[in-house]
Amino acid sequence: MGVSGSGKTTIGKLLSQKTQFPFFDGDDYHPEENRKKMTSGTPLDDNDRKGWLQALNQLAAEKLQSGSCIIACSALKESYRDILKEGLENRVRFVYLRGSYQQILSRVQSRQEHFMPPSLLASQFETLEPPVEAITADIAFGPEQIVSEIMETLMKKTEFGLVGLGVMGKSLCRNLAGKGFRVSMYNRHLPGQEENIAVNFKNEYPELRDSLPFDNLEAFVDSLQVPRKILLMVPAGKPADLILEALIPLLSENDTIIDGGNSHYTDTRKRSELLAAHHIRFIGCGVSGGEEGALNGPSLMPGGDVTAYKEIQPFLEAIAARDRNGKPCCAYIGPEGSGHFAKMVHNGIEYAEMQLLAEIYYLLAQSRKDPDEIAAVLEPWKKEENNFLLEITTDILRTRENDGWLIDKILDKAGNKGTGNWTAIATAELGIPATMIVSSLFARYISAFKTDREAMETVYGNQQKALEIDEETVFNAYRAARLINHYQGFRLLKEASDIYQWQLDLPELARIWTNGCIIRSDLMERLPGILKSHDNILLHPGIVSSLKMWRPSLTRLVSACINSSVPVPVLSEAVNFFNGFTSSRLSANLIQAQRDYFGAHTYRRNDDGGEIIHHTNWKKIKGS
Amino acid sequence: MGVSGSGKTTIGKLLSQKTQFPFFDGDDYHPEENRKKMTSGTPLDDNDRKGWLQALNQLAAEKLQSGSCIIACSALKESYRDILKEGLENRVRFVYLRGSYQQILSRVQSRQEHFMPPSLLASQFETLEPPVEAITADIAFGPEQIVSEIMETLMKKTEFGLVGLGVMGKSLCRNLAGKGFRVSMYNRHLPGQEENIAVNFKNEYPELRDSLPFDNLEAFVDSLQVPRKILLMVPAGKPADLILEALIPLLSENDTIIDGGNSHYTDTRKRSELLAAHHIRFIGCGVSGGEEGALNGPSLMPGGDVTAYKEIQPFLEAIAARDRNGKPCCAYIGPEGSGHFAKMVHNGIEYAEMQLLAEIYYLLAQSRKDPDEIAAVLEPWKKEENNFLLEITTDILRTRENDGWLIDKILDKAGNKGTGNWTAIATAELGIPATMIVSSLFARYISAFKTDREAMETVYGNQQKALEIDEETVFNAYRAARLINHYQGFRLLKEASDIYQWQLDLPELARIWTNGCIIRSDLMERLPGILKSHDNILLHPGIVSSLKMWRPSLTRLVSACINSSVPVPVLSEAVNFFNGFTSSRLSANLIQAQRDYFGAHTYRRNDDGGEIIHHTNWKKIKGS
Repeated sequence: MGVSGSGKTTIGKLLSQKTQFPFFDGDDYHPEENRKKMTSGTPLDDNDRKGWLQALNQLAAEKLQSGSCIIACSALKESYRDILKEGLENRVRFVYLRGSYQQILSRVQSRQEHFMPPSLLASQFETLEPPVEAITADIAFGPEQIVSEIMETLMKKTEFGLVGLGVMGKSLCRNLAGKGFRVSMYNRHLPGQEENIAVNFKNEYPELRDSLPFDNLEAFVDSLQVPRKILLMVPAGKPADLILEALIPLLSENDTIIDGGNSHYTDTRKRSELLAAHHIRFIGCGVSGGEEGALNGPSLMPGGDVTAYKEIQPFLEAIAARDRNGKPCCAYIGPEGSGHFAKMVHNGIEYAEMQLLAEIYYLLAQSRKDPDEIAAVLEPWKKEENNFLLEITTDILRTRENDGWLIDKILDKAGNKGTGNWTAIATAELGIPATMIVSSLFARYISAFKTDREAMETVYGNQQKALEIDEETVFNAYRAARLINHYQGFRLLKEASDIYQWQLDLPELARIWTNGCIIRSDLMERLPGILKSHDNILLHPGIVSSLKMWRPSLTRLVSACINSSVPVPVLSEAVNFFNGFTSSRLSANLIQAQRDYFGAHTYRRNDDGGEIIHHTNWKKIKGS
Repeated sequence: MGVSGSGKTTIGKLLSQKTQFPFFDGDDYHPEENRKKMTSGTPLDDNDRKGWLQALNQLAAEKLQSGSCIIACSALKESYRDILKEGLENRVRFVYLRGSYQQILSRVQSRQEHFMPPSLLASQFETLEPPVEAITADIAFGPEQIVSEIMETLMKKTEFGLVGLGVMGKSLCRNLAGKGFRVSMYNRHLPGQEENIAVNFKNEYPELRDSLPFDNLEAFVDSLQVPRKILLMVPAGKPADLILEALIPLLSENDTIIDGGNSHYTDTRKRSELLAAHHIRFIGCGVSGGEEGALNGPSLMPGGDVTAYKEIQPFLEAIAARDRNGKPCCAYIGPEGSGHFAKMVHNGIEYAEMQLLAEIYYLLAQSRKDPDEIAAVLEPWKKEENNFLLEITTDILRTRENDGWLIDKILDKAGNKGTGNWTAIATAELGIPATMIVSSLFARYISAFKTDREAMETVYGNQQKALEIDEETVFNAYRAARLINHYQGFRLLKEASDIYQWQLDLPELARIWTNGCIIRSDLMERLPGILKSHDNILLHPGIVSSLKMWRPSLTRLVSACINSSVPVPVLSEAVNFFNGFTSSRLSANLIQAQRDYFGAHTYRRNDDGGEIIHHTNWKKIKGS
């Protein structure tokens, strides 16, 4: 494509010679009426052109059935090109021969056989809408060089493939393309639901000009350099299994698949084994940061095959967020499903962080504050203890709609997408009481029982009383609870690392969570240093002195909320956990006695080193 | 066996005729030295007899290699019989010909060929240790009748088999035998660890006289009437799988296996399918009541194949506890793993009931009460609100040891055997916030971190302060918390019933939990009636008025404990759950806004019926 005189025929024919694809001059396909008009000097209007462009589109479709072809056509407007590629979106490539008005004018004036008045050329330039997605060649270069460049671009396979163009997949594509990678992008074709997703997406963003869009999986795979690197961004569970099943027969040995979805870590282990049987490498990669993080730099938690990781490392590191020292927020996590496990715990910590802010919002509202006033309470906290979730919470609280606040109009039934649930199950299975994460999950569940809650309130009445609590107390309680939440999350990671022998590097994990992800915070910035010396962050001297200072506030706040019947399940869990965890003696001796009484489960003693198993015939003792 | 003149030769020969097993007279196997002694009138001592008895033992072993045999031998002492059956414990049956001194004296005096002085007979009676485990025949009857009775007993197959003689298995065997059932009992043979378990167990309890003990699985299966009914009382998980694997090839079509262990309900479903493929029926049966319940009447929760249930119903109902109307605490629960699911939730409720008592014990101890004083506080509660766990708790608290209380010497690290863990996982999976059960599980986990707790107390100091709280408040808080715990447990059952389409009969489930099981209580007695009209027991008018009355006490107690840094995680969960569950508005609107902000997860509104999905571009709004 290009204006008259840009060299379409010359370049097209030469390209035909080199590629063996037949060449067609579009002008030969004008219908009779158009020819007559042109001969009589009447300019063609868009309506005249429509039938002609459709004829060329049909020509291309026909030739593509058994090969390919090269067609010369000025195709000046986007709307013309739309007709030309209709139904062939993935298979038509435009080559745009670009030159300036002066360049082309002097060129056509030197040509004998084809006189063109300068006014016609000027009008062509006026009509021209330069294409975004075409291969662009500068006509200043000689035909041989132009053709060899076009061929290189046309034949060049892409470096990286991405499957699944949802919110996260799209953002990662743009991120990769923006970093200079050529990407093949695939989204399934679901008639009436998901159609031309990849093509439309490519057309939407200029940075995707060198990316290849597909809705045909074979063509997608075929477009990738071998060994292939394919990032899956499809929903966890069945969809991930289905796409793997479809991909396996198309792949070659040593290709690498990266699952960037929120897959369950045990599924990741199973899939590693399945793919290993086909000599395909597998990386389970946690991706955090939401839509914006994916676009501008997410936090990445890849785990699995180390050799495969080395190959994809340049891609992942290029797109990842940077920490404050400029290092990428991406690090090899460990074997098997460890990357997805880390992401799962990340989300668990996130659940509790979100719920803490929700409880604080709620209890401040209970102190008769409106959303703007609550935002004003939270605002100064950013100076001392900033974090991403706190930032978005103040944004949210200040968002107005008509005569009020949007937050007041949002239904209080929380959803969840599985990872919080999985973290709760992991805490139960691994024997780690990450009580705040689990309580946050349950708070969401309780919120979902809206009808029950309404029925209960009708019967029991709303007993919530106004709270009198100063802002300093709330802030300190929040800070204390966050420390306890982070302790519980990292303890869960430590336990999994020990049990599964993953040798997780916890300081490094904290480092890659300092940017790009949802739980990035001033506290997270401090954790790499703290974790280097203390597995149990609550024993680190700096943390100890903070917690000692803030603990009375947490106690006071929770006690006041309970007295006012204001539900604060996660703040309560924080204080109860801490009270239990700092007590060398607890009440489990009675539990052990009960278990021994009715089930002969035996017990140990505190006066013989705890090594010996004891059983008491309690009934007999009682009877005697 | 039997004294001289009891008719061993006569009966043995007749039995040999009928059974075709060869007969041997033991006297023919005395070594030369013994014969000489006997001829010379010197009585044999036990040392003389030893070689002889060993020879007979060898004879039996030899004959048993290719069939069987009948041996006549006086075998007056237990120690002689031990030698006779050594290494053949499961395969030797003793037949004891019992008669009085006078009966036998008159019989031998009437015999011509074999003179015996009365003094010798008297000394034999003195030596005789009548056997416990033998088939006993009264010599007053004629030989024909005696032999036919022996044969009947020898050949009769048992009605019911039980595998696994741990604490629960043994108690259930005694329970079955005590109800008049003939039981085959099997326990594996593990050299040096589990040897002769079944035989020794049988010898220990007279009610087991007609039971058959085995450590050979084939012989055990062979001893059962067809179709066989076999109750497994082996640990859940791998051991259950292994025994099923070993049993399958030995069983016939329509045999029924009952798994009475605490198996996971999903394992039960898988095993049902496995066995169905072999046309063997399977029942997963929850068994609660501990050692004593198993012995005197447990609560039984059988689920699975209904046809199979009909066949085993008489056995299960006979051994089950009785409710206050005399009906058995046993009812068909539903299909698949529903019986084990019910047992799992039972144990979950039990976890929270135990932890509530542990917290109350702990907070009362914090009010400077000693265990006897705490028992004195709890004692009057039994009048108004009795329950099994409360009863054993007062027993435990009063149990003294030397100069103090035993409870003070028990190590405060609680164990758990999986069902609490599984309930926690089920609550997460089914989306039901059974917060008190989960918190109880976590309280046990926290207790297990004893070393961490000690380190934390050293750093943070013990901040627990004395509590001033009246006993009425504690009692009311306890009662309120128990109602909430039972609500959560039954809600979990309801949800599983709906999701898995089990059609559980919740009132009936509550009824079979009124006796025999660990969570039997005055409250449980009321629940069948309440559940008939209210799925949500907290909406039942009687419960509503109680909870309204007790709720302020729960609030006051928890608030006081938090203020005194006394950990009460489960009481806190009760109050926070109730505060949330009675609030028509919660803070989940903020959670939804956060999720929409960073992940475009969308939200619903409270002013359009909640049917429409909304998304807000929060950043843009903020920027504008």
